[in-house]
Amino acid sequence: MLSGLWAGVALAARDALPSWNDGPAKQAITSFVTKTTTKGSPDFIAPDQRIAVFDNDGTLWTEQPMYFQLFFVLDQVKALSPKHPEWKTTEPFKSALAGDMKGVAATGQKGLMELLAVTHAGMTSDEFRDRVNQWMATARHPKTNRHFSEMVYQPMLELLAYLRDNGYRTYIVSGGGQDFMRPWVWAVYGIPPEQVIGSEGELKYELRDGKPTLVKTPKVALINDGPGKPVGIERFIGQRPVFAFGNSDGDQQMLEWTAAGTGPRFAALVHHTDGEREFAYDRQSSIGKLDKALDEATAKGWLVVDMKKDWKVIYPAEKP
Amino acid sequence: MLSGLWAGVALAARDALPSWNDGPAKQAITSFVTKTTTKGSPDFIAPDQRIAVFDNDGTLWTEQPMYFQLFFVLDQVKALSPKHPEWKTTEPFKSALAGDMKGVAATGQKGLMELLAVTHAGMTSDEFRDRVNQWMATARHPKTNRHFSEMVYQPMLELLAYLRDNGYRTYIVSGGGQDFMRPWVWAVYGIPPEQVIGSEGELKYELRDGKPTLVKTPKVALINDGPGKPVGIERFIGQRPVFAFGNSDGDQQMLEWTAAGTGPRFAALVHHTDGEREFAYDRQSSIGKLDKALDEATAKGWLVVDMKKDWKVIYPAEKP
Repeated sequence: MLSGLWAGVALAARDALPSWNDGPAKQAITSFVTKTTTKGSPDFIAPDQRIAVFDNDGTLWTEQPMYFQLFFVLDQVKALSPKHPEWKTTEPFKSALAGDMKGVAATGQKGLMELLAVTHAGMTSDEFRDRVNQWMATARHPKTNRHFSEMVYQPMLELLAYLRDNGYRTYIVSGGGQDFMRPWVWAVYGIPPEQVIGSEGELKYELRDGKPTLVKTPKVALINDGPGKPVGIERFIGQRPVFAFGNSDGDQQMLEWTAAGTGPRFAALVHHTDGEREFAYDRQSSIGKLDKALDEATAKGWLVVDMKKDWKVIYPAEKP
Repeated sequence: MLSGLWAGVALAARDALPSWNDGPAKQAITSFVTKTTTKGSPDFIAPDQRIAVFDNDGTLWTEQPMYFQLFFVLDQVKALSPKHPEWKTTEPFKSALAGDMKGVAATGQKGLMELLAVTHAGMTSDEFRDRVNQWMATARHPKTNRHFSEMVYQPMLELLAYLRDNGYRTYIVSGGGQDFMRPWVWAVYGIPPEQVIGSEGELKYELRDGKPTLVKTPKVALINDGPGKPVGIERFIGQRPVFAFGNSDGDQQMLEWTAAGTGPRFAALVHHTDGEREFAYDRQSSIGKLDKALDEATAKGWLVVDMKKDWKVIYPAEKP
């Protein structure tokens, strides 16, 4: 009896991915990690080379009904608007203040860049960090009423920890703002700032009252999306990853770049199939569109995770 | 007798910096590391925040009679010249082929950028890595006849290892080319590619015969020197370092940025005072000029290491 009990405990302790249903997805992950970390295995990967990269929006947390960073932008525009009465009548601010995302979208790339400029530039990097922390602690998602940092995927949290426990270094490689992610992802994902690669603006070093500061400018330094992802990876990591996880066409080149290396490689997509527990979308979606990358995954045998079938729970709060 | 022998061995084992003479410099280093890593010390620094940054040229290896990367450039120009007969009569190539550095210098920033463009761009990142490895394995320094990677400073190798043994993450933050350093610094300094921040060109993702490649372009992405160093640090590390080591005015802002943080901080300069064993230069040098930063070090009490007095040996080959 006792020994049976302990065997059960041991078995539970061995399951590093309890929120993943038993099936081909979970099997593919554990089999890859086991074979690449077992000494003497023909597929053994030296610890130095165990680099795993993850997209963020739609891969580690929800990205619907719009990228969470856009909620941040709209809230910041509102907070700043008392100082800018002209925004009431000027696009894209007028639409942003009305929460009219179609109106914002109509102002195109130019409008979006203007919104990013006023909400992400002109302040020091320390000030921006404070704003993000403040927002993450208070803002809530319109559908779930949860804090945004509570809308991360429990199965992916387990996967990140499982990889690290097996000597992998886990990186975020996201089209989202690097400075927008760094303040909170260490606590939430266990990923330190230096392993967060994202889109970024130029910084300017300035002495203000004799005190060194870094000021955020509106000039773009890197759009870390699509073909920008392998570029960001080479720039920051300087080694090709062996493990990559994404969910949209913006991740296609990162997966290609990873998969094209020599030796064992793992490339996977999260497929958003669960309209009930999360959101269901793929080829037709304007956010997180998954079309070409889904075809390439099929053609090349990359893993496609079916959220509805493969995940027992979506968010940490749903854990049994 | 035996116990005396063993005590001697234990004592030797305790000295992590055997190539540093006993004195204020060594004392300042060990005292900082001890107080920041001793639990309960008022100056304790959590392991997460133990970030140490090092300049490379003149701080970790020699930079005279010119930056080693320039020797690489000249050798590459020679190697490529058979395909470019026009270089024999066109500057800056004509001077470069003649090894006439004054002639190269006369072509100014524009000439230097042209040399960098033809030797550092237009190839894939993998091809460039191969060239650097090939060059490091064969080229020799004109004065010492040693391989360039043998002209690293033994005392600094010990310092890097000592910091890592005490939970510090060691980064290179250099004005030199990121891609030029990454191929060899892991083996030589124990610093992996993702902890090497340097100047860098833009990369372009391309499918060549269906195979993903990253092509180096001549467009500059970051000049990681002077005020660019705190920018590079924020971009790559996302945390302010607590420990910084440089040797020239190009490191001044990195040291300021580090020293201006709250809590215990360590900022230091290598002062090249040893014309016999290495090179002696400071305020008047065109390479590795140390003038304003030396004044600031004096004013702010940063450590200034006197190579002649503080270092028992310069290069690893001189170890007793």
